[in-house]
Amino acid sequence: MSDSLSPKSGFAALVGYELRLWQEDAAEVGLIVGRQHINRSGVLHGGALATLIDSACGYAGCYSPEGAPPKRAFTLSLTNNFIAAAAEGSRLTASAQRTGGGRSVFFARCEVRDQDGRLIGSGEGVFKYIAGHK
Amino acid sequence: MSDSLSPKSGFAALVGYELRLWQEDAAEVGLIVGRQHINRSGVLHGGALATLIDSACGYAGCYSPEGAPPKRAFTLSLTNNFIAAAAEGSRLTASAQRTGGGRSVFFARCEVRDQDGRLIGSGEGVFKYIAGHK
Amino acid sequence: MSDSLSPKSGFAALVGYELRLWQEDAAEVGLIVGRQHINRSGVLHGGALATLIDSACGYAGCYSPEGAPPKRAFTLSLTNNFIAAAAEGSRLTASAQRTGGGRSVFFARCEVRDQDGRLIGSGEGVFKYIAGHK
Amino acid sequence: MSDSLSPKSGFAALVGYELRLWQEDAAEVGLIVGRQHINRSGVLHGGALATLIDSACGYAGCYSPEGAPPKRAFTLSLTNNFIAAAAEGSRLTASAQRTGGGRSVFFARCEVRDQDGRLIGSGEGVFKYIAGHK
Repeated sequence: MSDSLSPKSGFAALVGYELRLWQEDAAEVGLIVGRQHINRSGVLHGGALATLIDSACGYAGCYSPEGAPPKRAFTLSLTNNFIAAAAEGSRLTASAQRTGGGRSVFFARCEVRDQDGRLIGSGEGVFKYIAGHK
Repeated sequence: MSDSLSPKSGFAALVGYELRLWQEDAAEVGLIVGRQHINRSGVLHGGALATLIDSACGYAGCYSPEGAPPKRAFTLSLTNNFIAAAAEGSRLTASAQRTGGGRSVFFARCEVRDQDGRLIGSGEGVFKYIAGHK
Repeated sequence: MSDSLSPKSGFAALVGYELRLWQEDAAEVGLIVGRQHINRSGVLHGGALATLIDSACGYAGCYSPEGAPPKRAFTLSLTNNFIAAAAEGSRLTASAQRTGGGRSVFFARCEVRDQDGRLIGSGEGVFKYIAGHK
Repeated sequence: MSDSLSPKSGFAALVGYELRLWQEDAAEVGLIVGRQHINRSGVLHGGALATLIDSACGYAGCYSPEGAPPKRAFTLSLTNNFIAAAAEGSRLTASAQRTGGGRSVFFARCEVRDQDGRLIGSGEGVFKYIAGHK
């Protein structure tokens, strides 16, 4: 795994999601749902799904090619729809695209699917670039 | 701590948030921000904040007095605004109220503040009761 | 225009948007931006864009073939991202797809583009079917 | 009505909402629900409610005292929850507060109630100040 694919934050390590694809205006984050991601009703916790959507959307707007200065951003707003339940053992992929924006703000959207391609959740985010990083 | 205040889910234990108050139409969830909740930019991860908002909102609509059958619900949609950054060491409280709904669906809103009362984030959720639980 | 494409509500007539395509799990709504849709800053009012997103998403989950009983639904939650400004004279198309759900609730997402294919806005909605209609 | 309370946009005039209160970090917008605001199901159109929430939130962050330069902003994201149906004849008040932000972006939240104080809807928005206006 290249360096650009392992910028692990504390929360990424805690939750255990992985950045699997990162390119201009797109990113993919993966998670294998374990017992530690489950809520009181026995399915994936909404916060875990929101974490995947937030992370994938954030990466999608912050890719910078090797040698270019890194980009950082923080989330202004995040919306999440929880379309189907995911159980322990599900292998989830959150696929995000940057959909617009400029030098100070960007927009991204994300779909989360399981190993069978079933849509588990979706969401959109607005992010602000951190000055000095873009 | 009474039993009704310790229905720890796997994700609650992983993230480390605590249900501090639970009553009719309201709930409070607390989190002390540690290194494990931090993102690549050195502040609270958006997913951690969304987890607090989702959890507090969900509890707010699912209180049932001792002896009554428990209520369960799953999130349909969740929105989050990230108003100020929270650093390691912040002591956060997510306070949620049920704002409406009926027998099948409920609405809730939440504010997250730090130990100084500063507004860190806010959000709203729509939840569906799980049949047999209400 | 067939009957199924002219179920004009009061607000549809007031705002002047048109249902242009309606089929299983999808709908398209069009609007030509006039002076009456403009905000104080001289561009499309956020409420007008939200109206297109809400309408297209709502239709996307309520198609019923000729002869079948009609479906109705109301919005539970709606999110909107405003990606680029649209000026007077823009010809907008809001394209929505039903992304999931069941007998009581459905999810839909929408993109709004102008005549040049430029992405103006996007959003997602959660809707509840009105009993007796599905 | 003072000048500061009549900055009617084209869409404000079309929909017929009124700015009733405007002060530092807060605004109130009113609408009497007429036949022209109704959807196919006979109640207030989601787009009309979103218009009130967007407008009230936008005003809440853009107050400037008499003599000070005006402020303008555009919506980045808007979320809306539709908590109860409002019928023709309802007298609605959308009350918004600016909840945070700085020189480039602000956050606001809004509740919409009818003449009996019943909560009809709620929402939150993120807005970007237009350069040169703040």
